Amino acid sequence: MENTENALKKRMEPVSLRQVKIEDSFWSPRQRNIIDTVVPYQWDALNDSIPGAEPSHTIENFRIAAGEAEGEYYGMVFQDSDLGKWLETVGFVLSIDRDEKLEAIADEVIGLLGRAQQPDGYLNTYYTVKEPDARWTNLRDNHELYCAGHLMEAAVAYFEATGKRQFLDIMCRYADYIGAVFGAEPGKKPGYDGHPEVELALVKLYQATGNEKYLELSKFFVDERGRQPHFFDKEAEEREEKQVKSRPKRFYDYFQAHLPVREQETAEGHSVRAVYLYSAMADLAADYNDPELLDICKKLWKDVTRRKMYVTGGIGSSSHGERFTVPFDLPNDRAYAETCASIGLMFWAQRMLQIEADRDYADVMELALYNGVLSGISLDGKSYFYVNPLEVWPDTANFRHDMSSVKVTRQPWFGCACCPPNIARLIASLGQYAYSVNSGGQELYVHLYVGSKLSADIGGRSVQLTQETNYPWDGRASISLGGMEQPVEFALALRVPSWCGKAVVTVNGEDVAAAPAENGYVYIRRVWHDGDRVELSMAMEVAVVRSHPNVRENAGKVALKRGPIVFCLEEADNGANLQDIVLPADARLEARFEEGLLGGVTVITGEALRTDPEDIDDDALYIAGAAARRTVPASIRAIPYYAWSNRGPGEMTVWIRSQA
Amino acid sequence: MENTENALKKRMEPVSLRQVKIEDSFWSPRQRNIIDTVVPYQWDALNDSIPGAEPSHTIENFRIAAGEAEGEYYGMVFQDSDLGKWLETVGFVLSIDRDEKLEAIADEVIGLLGRAQQPDGYLNTYYTVKEPDARWTNLRDNHELYCAGHLMEAAVAYFEATGKRQFLDIMCRYADYIGAVFGAEPGKKPGYDGHPEVELALVKLYQATGNEKYLELSKFFVDERGRQPHFFDKEAEEREEKQVKSRPKRFYDYFQAHLPVREQETAEGHSVRAVYLYSAMADLAADYNDPELLDICKKLWKDVTRRKMYVTGGIGSSSHGERFTVPFDLPNDRAYAETCASIGLMFWAQRMLQIEADRDYADVMELALYNGVLSGISLDGKSYFYVNPLEVWPDTANFRHDMSSVKVTRQPWFGCACCPPNIARLIASLGQYAYSVNSGGQELYVHLYVGSKLSADIGGRSVQLTQETNYPWDGRASISLGGMEQPVEFALALRVPSWCGKAVVTVNGEDVAAAPAENGYVYIRRVWHDGDRVELSMAMEVAVVRSHPNVRENAGKVALKRGPIVFCLEEADNGANLQDIVLPADARLEARFEEGLLGGVTVITGEALRTDPEDIDDDALYIAGAAARRTVPASIRAIPYYAWSNRGPGEMTVWIRSQA
Repeated sequence: MENTENALKKRMEPVSLRQVKIEDSFWSPRQRNIIDTVVPYQWDALNDSIPGAEPSHTIENFRIAAGEAEGEYYGMVFQDSDLGKWLETVGFVLSIDRDEKLEAIADEVIGLLGRAQQPDGYLNTYYTVKEPDARWTNLRDNHELYCAGHLMEAAVAYFEATGKRQFLDIMCRYADYIGAVFGAEPGKKPGYDGHPEVELALVKLYQATGNEKYLELSKFFVDERGRQPHFFDKEAEEREEKQVKSRPKRFYDYFQAHLPVREQETAEGHSVRAVYLYSAMADLAADYNDPELLDICKKLWKDVTRRKMYVTGGIGSSSHGERFTVPFDLPNDRAYAETCASIGLMFWAQRMLQIEADRDYADVMELALYNGVLSGISLDGKSYFYVNPLEVWPDTANFRHDMSSVKVTRQPWFGCACCPPNIARLIASLGQYAYSVNSGGQELYVHLYVGSKLSADIGGRSVQLTQETNYPWDGRASISLGGMEQPVEFALALRVPSWCGKAVVTVNGEDVAAAPAENGYVYIRRVWHDGDRVELSMAMEVAVVRSHPNVRENAGKVALKRGPIVFCLEEADNGANLQDIVLPADARLEARFEEGLLGGVTVITGEALRTDPEDIDDDALYIAGAAARRTVPASIRAIPYYAWSNRGPGEMTVWIRSQA
Repeated sequence: MENTENALKKRMEPVSLRQVKIEDSFWSPRQRNIIDTVVPYQWDALNDSIPGAEPSHTIENFRIAAGEAEGEYYGMVFQDSDLGKWLETVGFVLSIDRDEKLEAIADEVIGLLGRAQQPDGYLNTYYTVKEPDARWTNLRDNHELYCAGHLMEAAVAYFEATGKRQFLDIMCRYADYIGAVFGAEPGKKPGYDGHPEVELALVKLYQATGNEKYLELSKFFVDERGRQPHFFDKEAEEREEKQVKSRPKRFYDYFQAHLPVREQETAEGHSVRAVYLYSAMADLAADYNDPELLDICKKLWKDVTRRKMYVTGGIGSSSHGERFTVPFDLPNDRAYAETCASIGLMFWAQRMLQIEADRDYADVMELALYNGVLSGISLDGKSYFYVNPLEVWPDTANFRHDMSSVKVTRQPWFGCACCPPNIARLIASLGQYAYSVNSGGQELYVHLYVGSKLSADIGGRSVQLTQETNYPWDGRASISLGGMEQPVEFALALRVPSWCGKAVVTVNGEDVAAAPAENGYVYIRRVWHDGDRVELSMAMEVAVVRSHPNVRENAGKVALKRGPIVFCLEEADNGANLQDIVLPADARLEARFEEGLLGGVTVITGEALRTDPEDIDDDALYIAGAAARRTVPASIRAIPYYAWSNRGPGEMTVWIRSQA
């Protein structure tokens, strides 16, 4: 990576979602599913019109707050954020495909939001309806600014999709009011939310409006966090909170408020909160040319990705506190690895990547996307994992209390609150993650290989890019350029992922002189003409992956990967007792695409070993004798991790014992 | 094992503790510690005279119940049982060494017990002081009969040690009263205690008094358990217990009351309760010549020892509910394996062994003794483990909530309530476990190799047996016979443990014709003379032990054993990251006694492999590449598992990765 001092400005900016249209055999059906099924379903949920489901009451809360309905507030204290996430997804969806009917529904609910907003700009249904005199009395627990942040993100997405300002104006009024309440000035509260979110949302609001007050407010929240005297202590005292006799250890770690952020060199606490905060920190480091803050971001990045991340891009290994624990503590059978945390890791990675064109960020972003995030949703889009274990034994997981967070099958939508809408907004906005442009340096970056059409603006010149690929099953991508009024000189920067041992690039059929990749990006700078065609061919071999030896749970084990996809063994293919399977040192592993399996996936097959059933004495739990038990050959078939648990419950493991 | 039908009567009876005197380099210092330190310390604890310790209030509760003090009841609902366990230990200690001062203290407290007893025979300070009108209203939770059982056991031990009847009479009166309250007859309660204990205690009371009513009452409690309509439902209804909306799954399993005991074919629920119940069931199967009940005991024995027992003899793998889980679910890092459960397993094993002279029972009894039980107490006798994990990483165990029951060092006495006195009574009564006599068949059984002097009565003839041994470090034992008025014909039955591949027996220096051992016992039947000397020499090799392949946590791993001792690696000897150590297929392992280490222990040393530090890249959490990392040789030193955590906190593991 570059020295911090040299990386004070963002290297690039992600393209707007309106500039990208995904046309991809892997991703288009998934986006279609979000548009056609998930968005309407969630709208019904918000309106309590799903028979048999627990009521959400979200829209009703806004009606009550607007004085248009009678009744009590109902739901979690952060219920408003459900509408925020839904409206943000709608914004993304309208960027892809401007649907009048959906837009009319959104406009109507935006009108309601406006009517629920208080005269001073405040907009939170919990406090407005339930505790009108208690605003801002429990920043630590009550998600007031968190809800504001999700509505701000939604307003920005909706504005970018439609150009309509109503929602944006509502949220600017709210942000202006928040800025009048919070700040370092006398009479203002030196507070910040227990769940970071508003910080990154204010940066988006600044980007959409150009109003630097929002950026400054975000910086205030970030810099105030964890300072002494501690705001959470002060507000607890003010509301006369009963002092807990012995406060749990690491209480403020949970909120990333144990230290001022510039002193936080290790990732601690609730993992979703952490990566939302780090995303805002990366934004601010870039926008303020703040090398100190960037340096902290890089230290945290190393801590997370080198010591606290599952091979699937899952983070937060403890169910209790949904949190990071200690370095290398990555149990597979009790992994928490919340879907939302992997999504937040993508947010953070994307921001780091814009600062520094280093594939390390894009590799992690892609790893999380295809594994820890995508495992969160079933192939039919109808059920979800919050928790993404890397190893499941149904009998044990269903019995043991210390595995109670591990579900052996995905759960239906309405049982959940945070992960499903987070997956929806991520998949709907995927186009934003694929490309970036550096107009100054006239560079166009391809981060993700996804079939798509991009309309880019490079230094004021229009360029159309069409990408065709069978990724993630195939390592080739064809990129053709067009739509240029005249030839344009720029560098096309193609990411060569770290999993790829050998990549060949041709332009119009001719090998590009092998310029060594810079931080994982191959830069092809030339004057491009309409019809130019770039072919990238990345060797996509089956990889046998090992952990750092300090990862206790993986000692002596390997995982199979091919390209960005992590594989797993499922009982459906390999029988029970997966822990008995041993991969020989010389195992020949082959990859094959199976059209009819799990919506079309590449599988990895090979010969492994299992204990010879005839060498097992069921009357002996332990046997003595130096020699190992006899083994017999056993064919194995591994499927992509994201696709597990789509064929009924059964055992699953990512890590496989290795003879070598 | 024999067919159930042939084993209706007990094969043998344990010798009385008064007949055995342990003189052993391993066990005598441990018994001395109990007598000199633990018993006086616990007496002070019961009397609240330990500065800084939480008050026990046990004696004070009895004073209040006797009307000799004013005040409120204080302590757990089962506080009385602490006095029961202490008095039982005192009984055992007086059998070993009749100390007048200690006996005077005991007599005084027995007097108090008598005065606290109610006119109808009832004796429970909680209900007498706190809820005098609520006796027998919550058998499920309130340990009323459990406390009675511990006091009965104590009365029997005290009577056997001293011949004094006062305590026994008190407890017989209480038992008579219990028999008037409980039973199948109209007007009696068809109840039983949530925590089995009184069942095995009533058998002891029967054995001490010959009064069959006590045996019948025990049988009633055992047979009533789990029957429908369910007594716990009925009594809950009667006390108008608020119905829990959703009762936890397996609620009655916890109490072994989910089914009538004769239908319980798998070990379920709280493991200490389970083995206390199974002990009573074994007693009753023998005393009633009940093949059906014995058959259930054998099925449960197989389920526990073939599917649910750690290699250390620990049982109950779940902290939550301190319970059994599903077959082969034996996690090492979250093992519960309560010390009391291994002690209860010894109780049960000893009873099964008397019915059937099969070393399987004695092997498990010995395994639990030297490992899962003995690990519960520090070498200095001053601190204790409730929970006996087989693998500990302090950083992780101290952090993770799902490992919160794992303590990385032993805890001092006064923080505990059940395990320390249970260890004390077990070690004090060890002599009972070493020998049995079958007077009818004129057989003298040696189950445990412990330096000791035994005065046996074989068919009315006195025989003195002196055993000398350096067990468990050495597999040789010398047995000399004497004290016979005239030569006596009997069979000396010597257990050859299953860990022993080759045993040689000589009598007066001459090889005994190699009679094949019968169920693991070598029977030497002859006319014995004073001065006859039997030498048993058991090959005690280092054994490399593997688990059944269904034990997921141990797949690809081995444990080291030598004789009855299970070994472990500690960080103090082997550095950190113990999971990185791999034992080669051809590892040469040597055993060596180290006088100065941990009170004198045999250690196992050898050459293993560890990852070459130069082949570790701390900037990579995962690496791809089929080849394993390079390794370097690493000397290892394993110590007995029971002796771990006597040199400060650090990593520990029983199971070691194996190359083979």
